[in-house]
Amino acid sequence: MKPSQRSEVPGFQVMSILAKIDSLRAQGRDVVSLTAGEPGSGAPPAVNRAAALIHAQDTVLNYSAALGIRPLREAVAAHCVDWYGAEVDADRIAITTGSSGAFMLSFLAAFDVGDRVALARPGYPAYRNILASLGIEVVDLDCGPEVRFQPTVELLEDAVAQGGPIAGLILASPANPTGTMIGREELDSLVAWCREREVQLISDEIYHGITYAEAGAETVAAREASAGPPSPGVSALELTDEAVVVSSFSKYWGMPGWRLGWAVLPEHLVDPISRLAGNVSLCPPHGSQLAAVEAFSTESMAFAASQVEHYAAARQQVLDRLPELGWGEVAPADGAFYVYAHIGEHLAQFRDAQAYCQAVLEQAGVAIVPGTDFDPVAGHEWVRLSLAPGPEAVARGLDRIVAFHRG
Amino acid sequence: MKPSQRSEVPGFQVMSILAKIDSLRAQGRDVVSLTAGEPGSGAPPAVNRAAALIHAQDTVLNYSAALGIRPLREAVAAHCVDWYGAEVDADRIAITTGSSGAFMLSFLAAFDVGDRVALARPGYPAYRNILASLGIEVVDLDCGPEVRFQPTVELLEDAVAQGGPIAGLILASPANPTGTMIGREELDSLVAWCREREVQLISDEIYHGITYAEAGAETVAAREASAGPPSPGVSALELTDEAVVVSSFSKYWGMPGWRLGWAVLPEHLVDPISRLAGNVSLCPPHGSQLAAVEAFSTESMAFAASQVEHYAAARQQVLDRLPELGWGEVAPADGAFYVYAHIGEHLAQFRDAQAYCQAVLEQAGVAIVPGTDFDPVAGHEWVRLSLAPGPEAVARGLDRIVAFHRG
Repeated sequence: MKPSQRSEVPGFQVMSILAKIDSLRAQGRDVVSLTAGEPGSGAPPAVNRAAALIHAQDTVLNYSAALGIRPLREAVAAHCVDWYGAEVDADRIAITTGSSGAFMLSFLAAFDVGDRVALARPGYPAYRNILASLGIEVVDLDCGPEVRFQPTVELLEDAVAQGGPIAGLILASPANPTGTMIGREELDSLVAWCREREVQLISDEIYHGITYAEAGAETVAAREASAGPPSPGVSALELTDEAVVVSSFSKYWGMPGWRLGWAVLPEHLVDPISRLAGNVSLCPPHGSQLAAVEAFSTESMAFAASQVEHYAAARQQVLDRLPELGWGEVAPADGAFYVYAHIGEHLAQFRDAQAYCQAVLEQAGVAIVPGTDFDPVAGHEWVRLSLAPGPEAVARGLDRIVAFHRG
Repeated sequence: MKPSQRSEVPGFQVMSILAKIDSLRAQGRDVVSLTAGEPGSGAPPAVNRAAALIHAQDTVLNYSAALGIRPLREAVAAHCVDWYGAEVDADRIAITTGSSGAFMLSFLAAFDVGDRVALARPGYPAYRNILASLGIEVVDLDCGPEVRFQPTVELLEDAVAQGGPIAGLILASPANPTGTMIGREELDSLVAWCREREVQLISDEIYHGITYAEAGAETVAAREASAGPPSPGVSALELTDEAVVVSSFSKYWGMPGWRLGWAVLPEHLVDPISRLAGNVSLCPPHGSQLAAVEAFSTESMAFAASQVEHYAAARQQVLDRLPELGWGEVAPADGAFYVYAHIGEHLAQFRDAQAYCQAVLEQAGVAIVPGTDFDPVAGHEWVRLSLAPGPEAVARGLDRIVAFHRG
């Protein structure tokens, strides 16, 4: 017997490298992992206290409603007002099993087999791989440094002119792996373009809150010079009721293993997604939901905000040591917690970023990931380094990589 | 903008009724819910203790490997030996986000758009609804009382003769909603039929362990008369390496809200499912995984076994009061924790099971579910009552339904 054709998607290499790290560590190797978007801090302590209490009391954790428990849906609605000034009815909020659950449900609810959906390359590989597994055609937008790695109306017009109409557009701001953000004006023009052509916009905002300065500024100094804390990011919620806006507790709140995210839905997708969720996933993890209500407390929000300082410090370290690292061009990140860099002078010695990353892992004991996960065309010359583990891990990793290059 | 055509799946009514119960309770109504397969016991105490400790220690819960943490995969492998005498390499075990996650991943990995997959009607509605949303054609096998509600080789031959070859067969034993099981001999002939025709067998065994006696026996007395505890069920693992065998911590271990299940995979699906999982779900809930290792301890297994006694007692109550209830034929359950009954004399007064269930909920304050979820053809004359809440809840529910009928 054979697997399905649609299962022939590439693996997410980050997940494979995580497995390789496990196996190296099992052999006694000391590995600094700057691989995944996994905050070193873990969840806010108040969230852990709530979870500990739930289990200490032997709380019976049955299925929740398919779209999540009401108190968490209401807490997310309040958060939308708090961060974006956007009034959203809690009925439009679906709590999901990570942002992954939100993508699966919204792709199923919005797109049929054969539909064309556009997204930026480089970008998060699971978008394209989930879409492909569902029989949806991926329309690559070639988003290089000249457009700050983000889709533009011009790129969309070109794609439609070349291949015909599209049914959907996926945006990510801040983006993974580049960290670039879409400004209010650009987002507004993309929203208008989608509205005119009945294109379903899906806005991935899971890195909101992890931002370093006004869009375009890159340094801690620039950030400190700004009047207040940086904006969490411009949300599509501020501009339209028609988008699916996806977020997650995994990044800003440091809870990837809790598998909890959400989607703010346009009215026309609430019932379809509710029906699909009741069949496809039944409900998101119930204990995670109960505890996550505490993620929006003043204490937890302060905890999460303090982590951003750590990512900024780690980011500055990498930028300061670029000459030593011998890396080339770096994407001008406004947010998220990655450095996406061209491997520069090392391209000559190593045939590509995959070989480079393998050598760095095996010889320097530092795990970073090749750009091929994020960009099947040009990614073989780029690497992504995750700042999420925090400045100490990043410092140790950088020391090792620099020492490795010195031989 | 419009939802996709494929999102036009029916909702899982059980999930809608759960939402309705929430809203009635919010209005101050006292509702006895015999709705969902949600064990009243909750998780084994040792599992809750482990989870409480994880959170009390502020354990950082990052992504796990896509197919789950090694200790849990090995614990499941040991469990397969323990219950079935089946030696399974832990590499073939995928930990999943509930059995729901296992179904989504295995359907994607095994079937392409347009493939035909057979399953029993009545049956768990999510099978057909997930399959339909993925563009897979559902081939209904009309499994009535005459075949104990289970597929047979004859029914499969008929389906192929009428509609052409099938790519897959889904079996469920014990089945939901009927609780009937497939004996070793019947399973062996179904396995052989699938092997000959290169049909991917997916065996849903999530109710294993919740069994009342030897197949066909129905009463606690018959069970007590048998030499030892009843078999947990015959697993497809005992007969073939080619099936996907799905199970879950939700039922026998009472952990539905923890969203944790597993699939034992045939070799040819290990890589495809690993790649799909790394894109589609990233990983199952990490905290649930760490704690679930304790589900296989002697203490936890004894706790889970003791719950089966409660379901058996609750089941006997329903059987004893059938004349008072005025229900008709009852599916001869060998396992699981449901009573699937024809509404008998009430069909005359209420136009169908949906109207009957609505009246029972609104006037008697007891939630049971109409058979239409499980059987779109004949289910409108049947109801499913869940025994999972335990004998006290069932006794209260039955008192109320009987009183309601007396008027």
